[in-house]
Amino acid sequence: MKLFNEKIFNPYWVVGFVDGEGCFSVGVFKNKTLRLGYQVQLEFSITQHKRDHDLLLQFIEFFGCGYVAPDGSLKFKYIVRDLSDLNRVIIPFFQSYPLRTVKQLDFNSFASVATMMNDKKHLTEQGLLDIQLIKGCMNRNRIFESPNK
Amino acid sequence: MKLFNEKIFNPYWVVGFVDGEGCFSVGVFKNKTLRLGYQVQLEFSITQHKRDHDLLLQFIEFFGCGYVAPDGSLKFKYIVRDLSDLNRVIIPFFQSYPLRTVKQLDFNSFASVATMMNDKKHLTEQGLLDIQLIKGCMNRNRIFESPNK
Repeated sequence: MKLFNEKIFNPYWVVGFVDGEGCFSVGVFKNKTLRLGYQVQLEFSITQHKRDHDLLLQFIEFFGCGYVAPDGSLKFKYIVRDLSDLNRVIIPFFQSYPLRTVKQLDFNSFASVATMMNDKKHLTEQGLLDIQLIKGCMNRNRIFESPNK
Repeated sequence: MKLFNEKIFNPYWVVGFVDGEGCFSVGVFKNKTLRLGYQVQLEFSITQHKRDHDLLLQFIEFFGCGYVAPDGSLKFKYIVRDLSDLNRVIIPFFQSYPLRTVKQLDFNSFASVATMMNDKKHLTEQGLLDIQLIKGCMNRNRIFESPNK
């Protein structure tokens, strides 16, 4: 089965757009109801000015998952947080259609945390520490590297 | 002859990336050496953090025109200003591979100013006024519209 609906967008357009506007993030939040006291949350998102709200809605149809929510008063965000959707659709898509910017490195970190979560390592102290370490070197915290080196 | 080098980038990736990170702008600058005292300058640009400097250089090879220049201390910008390059490569490219965001409206305004400049209308008072009017409704000054309406 196809991972996406090619009638909505060309997959290369999607990769280019995500290279510009997408974000792969790892959140670690305090949650007293969990044994270790922390929750790990992966999020793939695309943020746009409200004028492109309709375009964001089309990503729900393209990937067959996710939702669109306001992000402040002027922006909207397409969001996929469900681990099974990330495993089944989002991660395989960006493995088949690789990003061209250094965001590829953030995607690699994101995918490695997903693998750890699939193996339930985020529920162990060592796993949680490892995830914190990966998170601390992603996105704005990443030290300058070229994707091709 | 192909308008671009498909060995460098997939053209749909380029449109997606430009939908996110590109800018089509019309500049009107004071220039006392010109009869009307104003110069019209079109600029197509893509801005990236310096970590993606190498990627920006590849756009020179992809489109076969333009250059990359620093944009502040942390960013670089791929720039095409030459009217003949815009007419010959950039405008036909985005006519063949349309943008999907509302940036398409800015591209339409940009292309219409290029047509006016080809007809030397920017050297007439009426033409310059018309261009100022188009410029005043582009990019951040555009009133919210959906690209499909």
